Amino acid sequence: MGEFELIAKLTERVGAPRTPGAIGIGHDCAALPDRDGYLLLKCDIAVEGRHFVRGLIPGADIGWRIATATCSDIAASGGRPAAALVSLGVPRGCPERDLEEVYDGLAEAARAYGFDVLGGNVSGAGELFIDVFMTGRGRRFLPRSGAKPGDLVVLSGPLGDSAAGLEVLRSGGSLDHPLALRHRRPRARLDLVDALQASVHACIDISDGLSSELNHMAKASGACLTVERRRLPVSDALRAHCTQTGKDPVDYALSGGEDYELLFTVPRGGGLQPFGGLGTRVIGEVVAGSGVLLDGKPLASTGWDHLRSQP
Amino acid sequence: MGEFELIAKLTERVGAPRTPGAIGIGHDCAALPDRDGYLLLKCDIAVEGRHFVRGLIPGADIGWRIATATCSDIAASGGRPAAALVSLGVPRGCPERDLEEVYDGLAEAARAYGFDVLGGNVSGAGELFIDVFMTGRGRRFLPRSGAKPGDLVVLSGPLGDSAAGLEVLRSGGSLDHPLALRHRRPRARLDLVDALQASVHACIDISDGLSSELNHMAKASGACLTVERRRLPVSDALRAHCTQTGKDPVDYALSGGEDYELLFTVPRGGGLQPFGGLGTRVIGEVVAGSGVLLDGKPLASTGWDHLRSQP
Repeated sequence: MGEFELIAKLTERVGAPRTPGAIGIGHDCAALPDRDGYLLLKCDIAVEGRHFVRGLIPGADIGWRIATATCSDIAASGGRPAAALVSLGVPRGCPERDLEEVYDGLAEAARAYGFDVLGGNVSGAGELFIDVFMTGRGRRFLPRSGAKPGDLVVLSGPLGDSAAGLEVLRSGGSLDHPLALRHRRPRARLDLVDALQASVHACIDISDGLSSELNHMAKASGACLTVERRRLPVSDALRAHCTQTGKDPVDYALSGGEDYELLFTVPRGGGLQPFGGLGTRVIGEVVAGSGVLLDGKPLASTGWDHLRSQP
Repeated sequence: MGEFELIAKLTERVGAPRTPGAIGIGHDCAALPDRDGYLLLKCDIAVEGRHFVRGLIPGADIGWRIATATCSDIAASGGRPAAALVSLGVPRGCPERDLEEVYDGLAEAARAYGFDVLGGNVSGAGELFIDVFMTGRGRRFLPRSGAKPGDLVVLSGPLGDSAAGLEVLRSGGSLDHPLALRHRRPRARLDLVDALQASVHACIDISDGLSSELNHMAKASGACLTVERRRLPVSDALRAHCTQTGKDPVDYALSGGEDYELLFTVPRGGGLQPFGGLGTRVIGEVVAGSGVLLDGKPLASTGWDHLRSQP
């Protein structure tokens, strides 16, 4: 059983939410309705040896990345981050300096994304972990499940750079390699929130690779997403890297995670208008049916599973 | 450096909250003002081998206890719990049944305390851990720092049962021993919230032992708390246990954690009125000065530190 199935199955044991209008499992964030729209709730965890390797990237990058992951989910749900709590598991002998660096990255993210860090919790643990609990607020909740036949499928930017950047770092490449920088410092697309609020039907952030997120959205929406390989945006840096290594940049986009771009659908005829000048790219359309088609052929999910995989 | 100092020092690196009226480190909960009062935020973590031992108590008790810990902090801040997210760290080979039992305890707590579990997150990890993020809502925020000279110091109920119950279980006692039950199933004092809202100046929950919490409140309030040994409530079960073992029940109350009673101060003359019939007990008063006095002698903090201690 994978991580999504496990947490869904466990949460189901507790029963359906009793708060009217509450949104539970199955979207990028949980949500509670309030007078101004929705309170958005998200937690995400980074465990040493699974989500990061201490020493491969600076500690501040670890803090930045986990904050970005949660802010990306808030953005995908149509909100802006407000406040965070942070739980730390600290192994015996962990230098305090390592924790300070992680927090310096959290502080940079707090300034860049506009949230407060209001406290948290620390415990001894066998390995270093950082669990970020992010709250946010949004007027309208953007579900994964709203894709409608006839919608355009849109991507907010190029994918695969982060996964390629991790490879560059693992093979001894420079921290300043353009792909390494994309791995170290992905950006949550909070710049898109107003446009998303204006017109999207369904939205999901790409934390586990495009093939995985397309399948999540298709399944949640009860529709088929059909996308074209030639329309997938590829960065110049990834193209140059693949020319050297002989690999296919689309493989990185489909299976590589942690780019934190957004995948969403908008109605044809005006739905794209709010995104003018924001660098988004139409990659396909929604049709009746189920599953995902890439150039007309079924595309399975090949994304990341944090229970099964190690980085 | 202990856990409180470490998390405070790390959080300070991020800088003061920019949200007007936000409440960060130094109280039982963090808080964001909203139109109806405050959104309360709390996280608490239970790590195997540090906060619990699998097999010593049923898995459902582990879930109940960690939910109670967070709901107790929400109550101490004057609120009621609304929704929770749960992060799980799952070691290789951990039976799914163990996780289901923990969730069954969370589900019982959700029904008893009135919150929804809206989702969460799971990751592989070297040891089992459960990190609960609880949100709540309160009209007025109850700080640790409001104790004023002249106030009465009040305790919501007897202390020490949970620590004694853990000893009973460790020495092979029955799961149904009255003290073991108090360890397995402490109650968050949400029944006190209306009365607390009506009159308290300062409030803190007793998760780490009375001596520790008295010192936290005295320091935060810039006042001296003076309490009397003979006024500390002791349960019949703890008294009977101590008669057998020759130990002093007050030692359990001062140093034993996880009873989740509340310690608070109210103004003399009417401040106790809202608590009529709720079983609270005046144990002392607030005077000018600093620190804590027990029967006139300085009382140091001997509570639990989750970075230093193992259960």
